[in-house]
Amino acid sequence: MGDRNSTNQTSATGSPGPLPGGSILHGGSLGRAREAFPDAPEPWLDLSTGINPLAYPLPEIPSAAWTRLPERGDVLALETAAAAAYGASDARLVAAAPGTQALLQLLPRMRPASRVAVLSPTYGEHAHVWREAGHAVEEVSDFAQLNGADVAIVTNPNNPDGRIVAPGRLAELASRLGERGGLLIVDEAFADTDEAHSIVPSIDERTRGLVVFRSFGKFYGLAGMRLGFAVAGLEMADGIRAALGPWAVSGPAIEIGRAALADKAWRIATRARLARESERLARLLRGAGFGLAGGTPLFLLAEADDAQARYEALGKAGILVRRFDNAPRRLRFGLPGSEAEWARLEAALR
Amino acid sequence: MGDRNSTNQTSATGSPGPLPGGSILHGGSLGRAREAFPDAPEPWLDLSTGINPLAYPLPEIPSAAWTRLPERGDVLALETAAAAAYGASDARLVAAAPGTQALLQLLPRMRPASRVAVLSPTYGEHAHVWREAGHAVEEVSDFAQLNGADVAIVTNPNNPDGRIVAPGRLAELASRLGERGGLLIVDEAFADTDEAHSIVPSIDERTRGLVVFRSFGKFYGLAGMRLGFAVAGLEMADGIRAALGPWAVSGPAIEIGRAALADKAWRIATRARLARESERLARLLRGAGFGLAGGTPLFLLAEADDAQARYEALGKAGILVRRFDNAPRRLRFGLPGSEAEWARLEAALR
Repeated sequence: MGDRNSTNQTSATGSPGPLPGGSILHGGSLGRAREAFPDAPEPWLDLSTGINPLAYPLPEIPSAAWTRLPERGDVLALETAAAAAYGASDARLVAAAPGTQALLQLLPRMRPASRVAVLSPTYGEHAHVWREAGHAVEEVSDFAQLNGADVAIVTNPNNPDGRIVAPGRLAELASRLGERGGLLIVDEAFADTDEAHSIVPSIDERTRGLVVFRSFGKFYGLAGMRLGFAVAGLEMADGIRAALGPWAVSGPAIEIGRAALADKAWRIATRARLARESERLARLLRGAGFGLAGGTPLFLLAEADDAQARYEALGKAGILVRRFDNAPRRLRFGLPGSEAEWARLEAALR
Repeated sequence: MGDRNSTNQTSATGSPGPLPGGSILHGGSLGRAREAFPDAPEPWLDLSTGINPLAYPLPEIPSAAWTRLPERGDVLALETAAAAAYGASDARLVAAAPGTQALLQLLPRMRPASRVAVLSPTYGEHAHVWREAGHAVEEVSDFAQLNGADVAIVTNPNNPDGRIVAPGRLAELASRLGERGGLLIVDEAFADTDEAHSIVPSIDERTRGLVVFRSFGKFYGLAGMRLGFAVAGLEMADGIRAALGPWAVSGPAIEIGRAALADKAWRIATRARLARESERLARLLRGAGFGLAGGTPLFLLAEADDAQARYEALGKAGILVRRFDNAPRRLRFGLPGSEAEWARLEAALR
């Protein structure tokens, strides 16, 4: 998984100083929101992320999931459920990780110094982790510019604007990169709401030059659980498994992930619900004078000349949305969960 | 955390084929035990690990720990509790990770090609992860042989024999290594039962050339939760935090870890209980004709000429212990939890 709530346009609130380890700012920090708006009413309504507010209901967790080390057979069952849910042809092509952020951190350390191109603007951690690991990173705005890189990175659908690249174009790029030892990383953190755009079904065990990241926590609303997956050809999937080592995923995450990923009825119902809810959010934002610059069923990117004043007004009302230093007319809104939260947002936008 | 149930003397049962990613065999696999002893009675009694069988009682976990991304402030509170529990002078010197195995996997990828010396025999993953990452690894039997390495690794107390190196000797070695850019890794996975041997209190923010791994899951009996810590000088602790990235530890692990590490009364009572229980296990094993070759309060290393026949007899009775291919006279026993489990072990050893 991992927060897809940040872009390379950093700073979610005005307050924070530098973070440890040179890290970048993300949505989802109520700690910083409380510092910026000390008089805001509690509890805060956090719309600064793209996490489904109605989480998959937690199943009973057997105590052995907490007390014992996870066994390889349990992880394999999880990877089998993920393969079925994501349309991968074989569980061996799916490697479970404690969140896709762990995969983001790992990949730059699995390659020699490379020229990396990130289709931008997008989730800021991609460029950040490759730079931190010593690679030469370029943020490019045209898809064609990815061709010259050793490592190309595309978030699809993109965060924060929802831009979609057709899987066929990605497959062509991956094929070209793979022929010369390069790699295309496709971050499908927000692909669960519409599998039509996923490149996962095109992967087989001989695939080279392509790895797909799938986030569990966003669509299933369980971001704190830390679960994500890499899908790739057999050589790369096995390499990622070896680099993560044994017991990478917690016992509770294995149990909950297996149940959730196997629950096709919930997945279908949730897609329909998120589609309805994001339509409702779009109407609310348009009615409040915003234009819409894109999004996915889990978040919308709104535009207005007075976006900064709107951000302040929302903050004073205890509602946190995502803003972008380099795009001051834009705000990103996640979905409210309850009717009370919808009413609160509506009132604050009035 | 991570299983400390493996040594470089691999193979816990006779059955398994190669594992994915060139990984090594560990204790704690009931899947493999069931294959090796298909007629054994269920449930299995797993004594093949060094995990406390009476786990820290799980506190109530707030739903936000599952649904929201962990905030940096929550991780800091966890690291503060860990610093107090482990005797570290400052929470900034403590970096939380999803298990110490994640730290084992990470460190070899943070250094250029190095000469690595592992004080052996010991937990097999140390030599394995450095070799896999392309370093030159030597397993040495004398402490003095560690001096010539770029990276020296000592498990203290050691697994499986409980050998203890005085912290003063480790501090001297770390100081020498640090002066020339080297690193001493001290794996204190089993140090919770007696803090007198921990080198953590000697670490301050300017410390170089030393990193300590602390396992949460063994002493607290929550191995599936995936939590561990690195303790080091500020530069290295910050470097590890940056390499792990944001949201490395799950929300539930943060909540449970904070509560458990702050519970001094449980820690003191558990130390006393484990000391009593390991004495009881020692009496039982001696009475059954074993000699004792070492151990810690969480496991004992037993010796007998008929150790392999004893292993088979225990397996047929549904009791899994740890054996070692290269030391056929030795078996490692973890602690039974309930009186019923004690009775079952006693009957199987009769």
